[in-house]
Amino acid sequence: MKTIEDAIQRIKVPDSAWRAKAQERLRHQARPAGSLGILEEVGLRLAAIKRTLDVRLASKVIVTCAGDHGICEEGVSLFPSDVTPQMVYNFVGGGASINVLARHAGARVRVADLGVAHEFPPDLPIFHCKVAPGTRNFARGPAMTRDQAQRSLAAGIGIVSALEADGPLDLLGTGDMGIGNTTPSTAIIAAFSGLPVEQLVGRGTGIDDQGLARKAEAIRRGLELNRPDPRDPLDVLTKVGGFEIGGLAGLTLGAAAQGIPVVCDGLISTAGALIACELAPAARHYLFAGHNSVEVGHRYMLERLELVPVLNLQFRLGEGTGAALAMELIDAATRVLADIKTFEEVSIQDAQT
Amino acid sequence: MKTIEDAIQRIKVPDSAWRAKAQERLRHQARPAGSLGILEEVGLRLAAIKRTLDVRLASKVIVTCAGDHGICEEGVSLFPSDVTPQMVYNFVGGGASINVLARHAGARVRVADLGVAHEFPPDLPIFHCKVAPGTRNFARGPAMTRDQAQRSLAAGIGIVSALEADGPLDLLGTGDMGIGNTTPSTAIIAAFSGLPVEQLVGRGTGIDDQGLARKAEAIRRGLELNRPDPRDPLDVLTKVGGFEIGGLAGLTLGAAAQGIPVVCDGLISTAGALIACELAPAARHYLFAGHNSVEVGHRYMLERLELVPVLNLQFRLGEGTGAALAMELIDAATRVLADIKTFEEVSIQDAQT
Repeated sequence: MKTIEDAIQRIKVPDSAWRAKAQERLRHQARPAGSLGILEEVGLRLAAIKRTLDVRLASKVIVTCAGDHGICEEGVSLFPSDVTPQMVYNFVGGGASINVLARHAGARVRVADLGVAHEFPPDLPIFHCKVAPGTRNFARGPAMTRDQAQRSLAAGIGIVSALEADGPLDLLGTGDMGIGNTTPSTAIIAAFSGLPVEQLVGRGTGIDDQGLARKAEAIRRGLELNRPDPRDPLDVLTKVGGFEIGGLAGLTLGAAAQGIPVVCDGLISTAGALIACELAPAARHYLFAGHNSVEVGHRYMLERLELVPVLNLQFRLGEGTGAALAMELIDAATRVLADIKTFEEVSIQDAQT
Repeated sequence: MKTIEDAIQRIKVPDSAWRAKAQERLRHQARPAGSLGILEEVGLRLAAIKRTLDVRLASKVIVTCAGDHGICEEGVSLFPSDVTPQMVYNFVGGGASINVLARHAGARVRVADLGVAHEFPPDLPIFHCKVAPGTRNFARGPAMTRDQAQRSLAAGIGIVSALEADGPLDLLGTGDMGIGNTTPSTAIIAAFSGLPVEQLVGRGTGIDDQGLARKAEAIRRGLELNRPDPRDPLDVLTKVGGFEIGGLAGLTLGAAAQGIPVVCDGLISTAGALIACELAPAARHYLFAGHNSVEVGHRYMLERLELVPVLNLQFRLGEGTGAALAMELIDAATRVLADIKTFEEVSIQDAQT
């Protein structure tokens, strides 16, 4: 599909010369070398992406992608699927967790319907990108067709273009809503890593031991039946993915293609980011891990992406909530790099020299 | 000393009825129970302290206490002691790490000289509370007299009164500056915990293996020679402490006495908080751990205080930098509690009921 190929072609490795300049500035700041830990690496990466030592992340947007899941038939979630559209309305109303935390972080929230099993009014202020009203139950066959997988990716890429047409976009956060979607996300990391499902499966919104066993069994059956090919990321998305996960992958590709850094949230956002980086490994350079989810599969995704999360707040919510709070620290990292004075600037003797 | 006794007497356990009301609100919010992890507990604690579900932390101040240390004679730090006053001037100039991160967090920075070995001009806009120009080398005798320890505590309490006289104070952060001060801080947790020094000692600003061995040896000698009594926190401060650590303990007591929550920073701030809580166990209810320092001794302090840090950014700087960034998340926790709508408010079916 041309949109996807184009985006992949446009993703460039960030400028290492700017990283080196930033490294030099950090080294001369009036404080012990390395003393600002993770924020230093965040600043270095942003300097390389944005080609400046004074990175300004004024315009921040979180896109929360929503979709429903046929796998819910297997009893993998505590909540019924109709909570997905209800939460979409809640996001639009501004009273959900992501609205509250995005507001705190100075970010706007945009919602996208990639595949909710509900007809939204066309004038609802969301991105209307429904591929189909929910995936099929992947424990009984592929979650979607390959064409649908491509359309979900292209929709995500299109959302980045639409946001950019709207005005500057300095930092993009990704979030999700979709009852049952920790199940396909776990299946995706299982497919790529080859690790046993028992090691990867978590409780999602809070299912009990029986539910957990049903969930693991559903994922195992889905993988055995559909045999997703880990060398073909689009096949993984097709066989055991979700429409919002495809949308999240597309957002990641689209942002990386435009040189926009992306903060991913928890298990589902990162599943999307993983699909994107398996398709286009250079996209990884634009990715920042917002936080460490309570969902155990998330850790394996971050390891595979070689990302260190900014926060560890024991969140297990999604929506983009971890990404929103991480944006505040990522923004702080830009100030660390630009604003902390060097030993020379304040004439203090540097013990390192 | 009356100031200290008064403060201790005034510290009350926060209102558990407000905590219960807050718990009730969190439970009914339109999201899975417990899904906002650490921020939920932060919100509950603040509701109990401030007796409201809509906590507003508009006025935030970070007080960075500075002091010098006789123990530097033992070669425990990479930097010379005259960096302490130079950094105080840097703080006043606004270009240091704490200025940058406090600005990001919307907090003001106030600097206090508790015992810097330098004569500051009296019109320098800092709190002038010098107890003495640096402690004595505690590897050769007590760091200070018991009277000096009391004066440093009283000074911290006095700073809280001065800040409150200035206007509202909703959240206090504590920070430190003092070349060599990870050494007394480590000695303090060694004295209280009885754990072997080797298990507690860290590299501070970045000393090498030889320096680390010298540091451990200096602490061991200091503890053997002075025999601080862990049941007498003032004796611990006297024998192996520091003036800024006493000031930080006083800030903690003073804030707790006024019902003001306190965010402590890393090893040194938390050493001060530990002295405060050993003197007045109820002060712990007002304490929030900003972050997990790289310094290993910090972990043992937090365990003793039963505090879970908000951030883990691999910082090892001090000044209040970790406290500043944590303030942003603590502020976010107040919005989580107050602003996320309940299932009833948005008419979504609650799976829990």
